[in-house]
Amino acid sequence: MADPFELSVTEAAAAIRAHDLSPVELVQSLLSRIEALEPTLVAWATLVPEQALAAAREAERHAGPESPVHGVPFGAKDIFDTAGIRTAAGSKLWADRVPEKDAASVALLKGSGAVLLGKTHTTEFADGDPAPSLNPWGAEHTPGGSSTGSGVAVAARMVPFALGSQTVGSVLRPAAYNGVVGLKPTFGRISRLGVAPLADSFDHVGVLTRTVADAAAVLDVLAGHDAADPDSAEEPVDAYSAAIGKGGPPRIGLLRTWFADESDAETRLKMEDVAQELARAGAEVHEADPGIDFGEAYAHHRVMMETETAATHAALFPGNEHLYGPKLTDYIRRGQAHAATAYVAAAAFRRTMQRLARAAFERVDVLLMPTASGPAPRDLTSTGDTRFQSAWSYTGFPSITVPIGLASNGLPLGMQLAAAPFEEAKLLRVAHWAEQALGVRLSPPV
Amino acid sequence: MADPFELSVTEAAAAIRAHDLSPVELVQSLLSRIEALEPTLVAWATLVPEQALAAAREAERHAGPESPVHGVPFGAKDIFDTAGIRTAAGSKLWADRVPEKDAASVALLKGSGAVLLGKTHTTEFADGDPAPSLNPWGAEHTPGGSSTGSGVAVAARMVPFALGSQTVGSVLRPAAYNGVVGLKPTFGRISRLGVAPLADSFDHVGVLTRTVADAAAVLDVLAGHDAADPDSAEEPVDAYSAAIGKGGPPRIGLLRTWFADESDAETRLKMEDVAQELARAGAEVHEADPGIDFGEAYAHHRVMMETETAATHAALFPGNEHLYGPKLTDYIRRGQAHAATAYVAAAAFRRTMQRLARAAFERVDVLLMPTASGPAPRDLTSTGDTRFQSAWSYTGFPSITVPIGLASNGLPLGMQLAAAPFEEAKLLRVAHWAEQALGVRLSPPV
Repeated sequence: MADPFELSVTEAAAAIRAHDLSPVELVQSLLSRIEALEPTLVAWATLVPEQALAAAREAERHAGPESPVHGVPFGAKDIFDTAGIRTAAGSKLWADRVPEKDAASVALLKGSGAVLLGKTHTTEFADGDPAPSLNPWGAEHTPGGSSTGSGVAVAARMVPFALGSQTVGSVLRPAAYNGVVGLKPTFGRISRLGVAPLADSFDHVGVLTRTVADAAAVLDVLAGHDAADPDSAEEPVDAYSAAIGKGGPPRIGLLRTWFADESDAETRLKMEDVAQELARAGAEVHEADPGIDFGEAYAHHRVMMETETAATHAALFPGNEHLYGPKLTDYIRRGQAHAATAYVAAAAFRRTMQRLARAAFERVDVLLMPTASGPAPRDLTSTGDTRFQSAWSYTGFPSITVPIGLASNGLPLGMQLAAAPFEEAKLLRVAHWAEQALGVRLSPPV
Repeated sequence: MADPFELSVTEAAAAIRAHDLSPVELVQSLLSRIEALEPTLVAWATLVPEQALAAAREAERHAGPESPVHGVPFGAKDIFDTAGIRTAAGSKLWADRVPEKDAASVALLKGSGAVLLGKTHTTEFADGDPAPSLNPWGAEHTPGGSSTGSGVAVAARMVPFALGSQTVGSVLRPAAYNGVVGLKPTFGRISRLGVAPLADSFDHVGVLTRTVADAAAVLDVLAGHDAADPDSAEEPVDAYSAAIGKGGPPRIGLLRTWFADESDAETRLKMEDVAQELARAGAEVHEADPGIDFGEAYAHHRVMMETETAATHAALFPGNEHLYGPKLTDYIRRGQAHAATAYVAAAAFRRTMQRLARAAFERVDVLLMPTASGPAPRDLTSTGDTRFQSAWSYTGFPSITVPIGLASNGLPLGMQLAAAPFEEAKLLRVAHWAEQALGVRLSPPV
């Protein structure tokens, strides 16, 4: 058997279920791995080894055959409240903040036997001011953000999965830059209770894993209605893991117009290769054109997102400006300056775009496009270009990134798939099918 | 039998169904009534007597036993599109505008055998600049607005029912000032397709009638999902007429805090009398306090409403300022000046208020409050105080006004009832019960 720290969620859960692996051994293996790598990668804001070992011992005593994550350790982005554990959201303002209750998603995972290993670094309040983590594929390249530590920790085999959040591109971009899988389900699919808000209309809880099947396993635990979250969706959940490996080759719509001028030539060529390879594997691949101006959509998304960020920080920002980073400050100031009519126009554009995108999904199962403009840029002052992931946060449709290989500079590239609202089962099924067809699984040189 | 023009919707429909009344006779009776009163009341923007007589002859030939409005004439506020008939929305800009298609609601009524008699006067684009109509109870008092002509025409027995619309208080206020019933169903319950928009989040189609049973009969025709209206609700409809007269005495929550400082002493006393009379008739009457600051709610509603009005007129207003009235101009200018963060705060307040109001309706069937600050003010420069009707437009909950008698100055007073979303059947049942318990039916001295 591989070193325990190498195991995916489903592999670890299966080994624990079969009594081939103890949750305590698994935590110890991961803690050793973290001890070795954390000084260079800085993925964790807070580690709770004693609590994790205690939870692992508890999981060892009480097997949970029904849970796909029983005994499996996870990290939570440091904007997720954790009872008794500092939750600082990457902010000087919250440096000493210790919540009393777990975020709903953290509580669901713990209740299913998953073991909280610690809190992963986030950009300041999940906005644009970078976290201290470094990309395991190249320390001079951004690891992306805002779920920075979650991407780094999962890629570097410090933990099999981690919670993240996405308001523009904060799950899919760090996942792609670190060579892992990142899933952002439909708006409202996972409760946001106890997660620090950035922009109410767009904040999504997501998960970072190393395989699509793992993302499905974690979603099986997290998806569902939460009456305590006013934006929680009431749509019935599906059996996500059960959808993995089912059905035939999918119908895929290739989005060639997806910020084509902003992506690098290698990425554009790679997407064509991927589309051809998926077609050879049996997929029905068409060029798709939903008739949406994605550049205009991004501009509208920014207006709403900056406004809501300013509204979120309306009580906290005045008098505390010196404790805010330059990018979040800029976001708040822009948000304060927008006219209400611009916000209303952006909301109207969003409804139109949702209708157009929904119509596109009547002809294909998923849309396919690059997750980012290229591999992680050589720039530690920014977390990368948010445009490529923004449309599905703006519309609230589910999206996922899956590794497709390495760029010529040795850094990972990802493909992004999106589906119609609440079609996560279909999205995960197709993403798994494509992942198997491409046969790519990346491991960073650490 | 009474003069046909005196018949309510249900009375007229029953007489037509029994072949005791011809739809042609009914139209002729109403046209004579209009001929006599229109010079003093000015309720109609456009009359279509020839088309109405042709439709009545058609209705006479093809009986529609299933329709509660077969052969019954109606008026449509002049913001509802009518195929081939000028629809000017009270605006100089649209003075010569002739739509090609009927609004969805007009088409539904025509398809059910109702007979369009003409278009009723509206304030300019359903905002605050008064229409030329006069109150049949006193020409120096405003007839209210924006569904001004609909209120006047129904009160003066020129037509048994009319379509109106409400964004703040534009159905219930003119209904109360003219002594008739006005129903504004839940947001999205009636299609808005083909109705000139004012503020997208708050525009509702409503109906003005002389009895609660009539409002139920018309709602039976109008309620339902319309895939062509993006804000149309998908909730199943109820059988509204069938609910009339059913069930026992209701549970009523009396809202004494409803702008108490802005209502006149006579109105406040009258509401206490009404509450006592309903209790004597068997209702369970409690004082209700949903913990909502209605004044603050109104301020937020204004921010959103003014902003959306500015957005609605963003393309039309520039260069056409001289064709706009002073109140709509002021609304647009205020809307242009609001900050996006204020809009977002108002939307958040609205969600909180919807939760609080929903909780209040777990303890009572309806909330009871005055429809207006008092009888129609002696002021023709304004259509009255919109605050009293605003909360249910802001939240989108259904509301209705029912006449409760005359003030000491001889002008009508109304009570307002509100219910939880999509509980129109309950609202109409209770309103009918209260209408019967009070035994008030008003007819103006014209």
